[in-house]
Amino acid sequence: MSASPHLVTLSDIEAAAGRVASTCLRTPVVPLVQPDGEMPLHLKAESLQPTGAFKLRGATNAIAVLDEAQRHRGVVTHSSGNHAQAVAYAARAAGVRATIVIPDNAPTLKVEATRRWGAEIVIVPPAERLARAEQIAAQTGAVLIPPYDDPAVIAGQGTVGLELVEQVPDLGTVVVPVSGGGLVSGVAAAVKALRPEVAVVAVEPELAGDLAEGWAAGERRVWSVTDTSRTVADGLRTDSVGLSNWDHIQAFVDDVVTVSEDEILAAVTAVVRGARLVVEPSGAVAAAAVLSGTIVPTRGTTVAIASGGNVATETLAPLLR
Amino acid sequence: MSASPHLVTLSDIEAAAGRVASTCLRTPVVPLVQPDGEMPLHLKAESLQPTGAFKLRGATNAIAVLDEAQRHRGVVTHSSGNHAQAVAYAARAAGVRATIVIPDNAPTLKVEATRRWGAEIVIVPPAERLARAEQIAAQTGAVLIPPYDDPAVIAGQGTVGLELVEQVPDLGTVVVPVSGGGLVSGVAAAVKALRPEVAVVAVEPELAGDLAEGWAAGERRVWSVTDTSRTVADGLRTDSVGLSNWDHIQAFVDDVVTVSEDEILAAVTAVVRGARLVVEPSGAVAAAAVLSGTIVPTRGTTVAIASGGNVATETLAPLLR
Repeated sequence: MSASPHLVTLSDIEAAAGRVASTCLRTPVVPLVQPDGEMPLHLKAESLQPTGAFKLRGATNAIAVLDEAQRHRGVVTHSSGNHAQAVAYAARAAGVRATIVIPDNAPTLKVEATRRWGAEIVIVPPAERLARAEQIAAQTGAVLIPPYDDPAVIAGQGTVGLELVEQVPDLGTVVVPVSGGGLVSGVAAAVKALRPEVAVVAVEPELAGDLAEGWAAGERRVWSVTDTSRTVADGLRTDSVGLSNWDHIQAFVDDVVTVSEDEILAAVTAVVRGARLVVEPSGAVAAAAVLSGTIVPTRGTTVAIASGGNVATETLAPLLR
Repeated sequence: MSASPHLVTLSDIEAAAGRVASTCLRTPVVPLVQPDGEMPLHLKAESLQPTGAFKLRGATNAIAVLDEAQRHRGVVTHSSGNHAQAVAYAARAAGVRATIVIPDNAPTLKVEATRRWGAEIVIVPPAERLARAEQIAAQTGAVLIPPYDDPAVIAGQGTVGLELVEQVPDLGTVVVPVSGGGLVSGVAAAVKALRPEVAVVAVEPELAGDLAEGWAAGERRVWSVTDTSRTVADGLRTDSVGLSNWDHIQAFVDDVVTVSEDEILAAVTAVVRGARLVVEPSGAVAAAAVLSGTIVPTRGTTVAIASGGNVATETLAPLLR
């Protein structure tokens, strides 16, 4: 855990906290109450951000660090999910123009959810989206805002960890869902800097378990998107963690575990019933690791990050019977 | 709006804030985002309290002000709903014994939800519940904790208003659901003391509109429970506001409006979709008044209090299609 020049530091994250405060919600930490009155974990409710996911923190910080010339040229990103909404919302809040490249197989609901924040939407075949975003950046000078492998994005997500340390004095274990690794990188960096004794555990769906495999092997692994797309947790289908995210995970994370699809869906229901929060499957993955007994905390309060709440009500309704 | 000796004061509410801080959640204020990106109102998410409703604040404060001899004798109340859970939870948190008298027609779910907090449950025919609670108080010396017509309870609920004023600098209108009137009494007392220019509007279901009728007539009205029980908002079926609550409403509330059953159910769906909060019908009544256009705010941020989230998932599921 020695400091490394390319790892995000506590002071990077503290600076981000000041930049995101007026755009992002300081989310509450809510107990998940079981029918017998036990409270096996608490949830950090990032689902309550105005765009429904923690991604708003990283996007807000990445836009806040732009200089005046960059702000004038605007920002661009490619995503069909929570990062797209986050960049669109953060750009509008900052008075910066945003272009979002969205694959033509994205659900209409998600396209509309991004469009409503005033971003320009460019729809392309899935295979062309990175190239098109880079082309727009090259042609217009717009700054590309990466979804996770970026120090400003990681520092922004790390503000979740700063808040947790302030909000939960007897914090024992923090449980974080992983896809590209932006959230876990920032949260782990913040928590380990302030409370090195707190355990930070990363969780993936088994069906998108590239990090778990890499963690066991001691080297980063890349899965096919065909494989990772099998999971119902549609926010966690990235093919691998980012390069700098891998380094943060190696430096700061204590363990990596996986959960099954059934455990994820059961956790969505448990969170709705026990904490009265609407979470998407990706947002219930961390809770699932505790509720299933995969993680057995030994001391203090356990907090799972409920990373997002962007679930269609048609998907949610059948889980509530 | 001149001060009256029996009205709860700002300093009563500030004192309550200190007493409830370790047991109750400082709930977030969350925007309700519509599909077009408009945010017509924010929600103060009291549904996220550990017992799922604002009632925990009043119960916690009422127990905190007991003296040592009273604490030793314990507390008693009669309720089948959110106040029962609140007293049971607050008593356990304070290390005080609680007895809850519950009518034998209460749903099993609510009985179990109260029992899990360790209270002694006494089940009686509905007509006997007040008498039985008073009998227990007389025989054991337990202190009766009233659901709304009580200065300590009102001061506890008023902490919602204190937080709102701190959390929302440009607060323009506060919209509060009413049944017995504990919440609106405390919130209005706090808000008007600190920001007299902020409008405070009380909302009832049309089918439990005793206060709206009394407000128009200029004198408190009592409806039959048979009448008030017609509304789907099962937390708002009290037959009238309390006597001291009526006085607080006369002193501090700007207007009283009603909403239809359809408006209430539509608001439950809108809150789940737009704010990712699980609310019970009673908890959506204030939002319904804004979303239906019944209240048309003229300036600043409008906040509706999402008073509770104790809805059975079987009730919620059909509203999400």
